[in-house]
Amino acid sequence: RINGDRLWESLMDMAKIGPGIAGGNNRQTLTDSDKQGRELFQRWCEDAGLTMGVDKMGTMFMTRAGTDPDALPVYIGSHLDTQPTGGKYDGVLGVLAGLEVVRSMNDLGIKTKHPIVVTNWTNEEGARFAPAMVASGVFAGVHSLDYAYGRKDMDGKLFGDELKRIGWVGEEEVGARKMHAYFEYHIEQGPILEAEEKQIGVVTHCQGLWWLEFTLTGKEAHTGSTPMTMRVNAGLAMARIFEAVQAIAMSEQPGAVAGTGQVKFSPNSRNVLPGTVVFTVDLRTPSQEKLDRMRATIEAKAAEICAELGVGCSVEAVGHFDPVTFDPTLVGRVRSAAEKLGYSHMNIISGAGHDACWAAKVAPATMVMCPCVGGLSHNEAEDISMEWAAAGCDVLFHAVVETAEI
Amino acid sequence: RINGDRLWESLMDMAKIGPGIAGGNNRQTLTDSDKQGRELFQRWCEDAGLTMGVDKMGTMFMTRAGTDPDALPVYIGSHLDTQPTGGKYDGVLGVLAGLEVVRSMNDLGIKTKHPIVVTNWTNEEGARFAPAMVASGVFAGVHSLDYAYGRKDMDGKLFGDELKRIGWVGEEEVGARKMHAYFEYHIEQGPILEAEEKQIGVVTHCQGLWWLEFTLTGKEAHTGSTPMTMRVNAGLAMARIFEAVQAIAMSEQPGAVAGTGQVKFSPNSRNVLPGTVVFTVDLRTPSQEKLDRMRATIEAKAAEICAELGVGCSVEAVGHFDPVTFDPTLVGRVRSAAEKLGYSHMNIISGAGHDACWAAKVAPATMVMCPCVGGLSHNEAEDISMEWAAAGCDVLFHAVVETAEI
Ligand SMILES: NC(=O)NCCC(=O)O
Ligand SMILES: NC(=O)NCCC(=O)O
Repeated sequence: RINGDRLWESLMDMAKIGPGIAGGNNRQTLTDSDKQGRELFQRWCEDAGLTMGVDKMGTMFMTRAGTDPDALPVYIGSHLDTQPTGGKYDGVLGVLAGLEVVRSMNDLGIKTKHPIVVTNWTNEEGARFAPAMVASGVFAGVHSLDYAYGRKDMDGKLFGDELKRIGWVGEEEVGARKMHAYFEYHIEQGPILEAEEKQIGVVTHCQGLWWLEFTLTGKEAHTGSTPMTMRVNAGLAMARIFEAVQAIAMSEQPGAVAGTGQVKFSPNSRNVLPGTVVFTVDLRTPSQEKLDRMRATIEAKAAEICAELGVGCSVEAVGHFDPVTFDPTLVGRVRSAAEKLGYSHMNIISGAGHDACWAAKVAPATMVMCPCVGGLSHNEAEDISMEWAAAGCDVLFHAVVETAEI
Repeated sequence: RINGDRLWESLMDMAKIGPGIAGGNNRQTLTDSDKQGRELFQRWCEDAGLTMGVDKMGTMFMTRAGTDPDALPVYIGSHLDTQPTGGKYDGVLGVLAGLEVVRSMNDLGIKTKHPIVVTNWTNEEGARFAPAMVASGVFAGVHSLDYAYGRKDMDGKLFGDELKRIGWVGEEEVGARKMHAYFEYHIEQGPILEAEEKQIGVVTHCQGLWWLEFTLTGKEAHTGSTPMTMRVNAGLAMARIFEAVQAIAMSEQPGAVAGTGQVKFSPNSRNVLPGTVVFTVDLRTPSQEKLDRMRATIEAKAAEICAELGVGCSVEAVGHFDPVTFDPTLVGRVRSAAEKLGYSHMNIISGAGHDACWAAKVAPATMVMCPCVGGLSHNEAEDISMEWAAAGCDVLFHAVVETAEI
C-alpha cells in the first residue's frame, strides 16, 4: 500500500502555489505560478532520487532507473497546470500519485526491470492556450512544435515566448522517448463513480472532442439609433447557435455533450452592436459516428443561422481528438489490482480529455480514476476524500509495478 | 455663415488624438488621450478668448462674455470622449461646432447680451463607465457625485480615481451653473436624414432608454465530463434571453430597439461552463408606455428562462432616461434658422441619448442634427461630409445668436 497521508500532504503543499479566490487554484500554464509548481515538484523528485529530463515543450520527465539498461520505461503522467478557477486535484493528483508510487517503491526497496518515469505534461488544460494536451499532442506527433509554439493566449502572448520566459525550454526533442507503457491517474470529473458508490474507475475509453472556434462578423453600430431592420446582429446569431448546440447535444442522447465556455464580444461596449463575436463550441461523445455528425450539423446550422441574419461566419477547429480505446492488457491490470486490493470498481469512459489520449497513440496506455464530490471539476470547489485519493494511488502502484516487472 | 473649412480642420486635428485602428478614434473618457484632447480644446478656446471653468465632474465650460452682467449664458455642448472603436464626429462635432460658432462671432464682431458657454461634458459615451451622460446627469441632479465617482470600468478602476489621475477634477460644484438655454449639435447616428435627403434634423424628442445589467449564476463545471442533465447552463440562459430581447423589440415595432453590446463570461475558459455571465441589455423607444412595458417584459421573461434552467438571475439598472420632449421655442428657432438659410430639414427623434436630454431637465434645450453616411455610428467608419457639418453649424450659429440676443 502507498502512503496516503504523504500523498495528501504533497497535494496540500502544491495547492499553496497559485491559490485561487475560492479555495482552489489558478496555476495556469507558463505563468509564474506554474514555474513555482514545477520547481517544487522537481525538488521533491530529486529528493526521491529521480533524475530530470525536460523536452522542448517543457514537459518534465523524472526517471527512477530500472535494472535492465535496455528496458523501455513505464510512464506515469498527468499535469500540474490548472484552470483559471480550477480545483486542487485535477491533474495534480496524477502527477503526485506518480511521485508517491516511486516514494513507496523506495520505502519498500522495490526494484523494477523497467525504469519508471513520472511526467508533468505542459499545458494539459488548454485554458490559457488552445488546444488542451498540447505537449502530449506534440509528443505523439499529432501537432508540430511550431504549431504549439505559435499558440496565442487572450492577451496575444505566444506559447513559445512564455515557455522561454519561465525558463523551461528543455533540450530533448519532443517525442524522442519511447514508452513501454503509459498510466494516468485522474479524478473522474464526472458524477458516475460517486453515484454508483465505486472507489475505482477502470477507464476503458475516452470520448472524442471537437473545439470549434466561431468568428461571427456583424456590423458594429449604435444600439440606440440603428433600426432593427438595419442590424447585422452577430450577438443574436451567437444566441441562436448556442440554442442549436444545445439541441444537437440533446438529439444525440445518451452519450453526448456540448456547450460553450468562452465568448468574446468586440468592441464589447454596452451601446455598440458587436462588430465581431468569437466563441468556442465544445462537442464530445464516445461515438466516432456521433462526433462527426455533431460537428457537421453544428457547422451547417451555424451557416444557416448566420446567412439568415446576414452575419459572416467562419469556423476554425482549435482542438480535436477522436474517441480513444485504451490498451486491454493495461486495463485488465488496473481491474485486477482493484480486485486484489479489495476496492469496488467499475468500467468507465473518460468524459474529459487527458494526456493518456495522446500517449495511447504511441504506447499501450490506460487510466485509473477516483470519484470526486458531486462530479464537480473545473471549479474551485472540486473535492475528493483522502481515502479516494489513496485507493486510486494504490491501484496505480500495483498496476505499474506489475507492468515494470520486479 | 460659419467657416466650414476651419470647423473641418479642427475636427481633423482633434481626430489625431487617440487614433483608432481603422480610421476612427479610441479616445475613451478619462484616459491619457482624453486628457490630451481636453488640453487641445482648452488651447483653442483660450486662443478664441474664452475663459475656462471646470466642475468636480471634469466638465469643461468655456465662456465668451455677454454684454449684460446679469444675463444667464446660452450653452452649446457635447462631448470629446469616444467609444473604444468610435468615429471622428460623434460628440466632437458638437463641441467643435460650438467653438466655431464663437470663432465666427469673433470674426464678425458679434456681441450678445447672454454669455455663450461651449461645454465638453465628461463621459458622455458610457463605454468605459456606465451610465452614459453621467456628468450632465449629475449636473441635472439625476445622479449624485458619489454615485458617479464610484462607477467602475472593466478593470475595476473608479471614475473618481481616473478623473483625478488625468488632473481634471475642477473646483466648481456640479450643477451650480444656471442656463438660459442649451443647444447640442450632433450627427444623427441613424439613417433617416440621409434617406430623406435632408440637410438638417430639427430634433423634437429623444427616445427613452433602459440599460439592464443581467448577472446570471450558473454552475462552473467541466464542459466534457458534466452530463447535460447536471448542467446549470448560464450561457444557454443568456442565449434565450437574447432571443427574448429581440422578440420584445420586434413586438413593439415601429419605434423600438433592443440589443446587447457587452458580455462577460467567467472564468471564460473553453472547457468550463461559465459560473457567471454578465451582459447588458439596451432597450429604447420614444414611448414611455412601451419603455416601461419592454423593461417589465424582459425582466419577467429572463426570470422565467432562468428559473427553467435553474440559473440564478439578478438585474441592475445601470442606465436610464425617460423619453424627452425638447423646448418648443428653441425647436422653432432651429427650424426657422434652417428655413432662413435655405437648408432642407425635417423633424426627427433622437435615437441615441445626449447630454441635451439631461440639460432639458434644468433649462430649455434642443438639438440640431446632420446626416451621417449609411446611418453608421459607434463604428470607426462613421462618416459625414464637410458640407453637412457646416450646414448644421450654420443653423446652430443662427439659433444660438438669436437666443443669446445681439
Ligand atoms: N482533464 C481535463 O480537464 N483536461 C482538460 C481538457 C479537456 O477539456 O478535457
Ligand atoms: N450619442 C451617443 O452615442 N451617446 C451615447 C449614449 C447612448 O448610448 O445613446
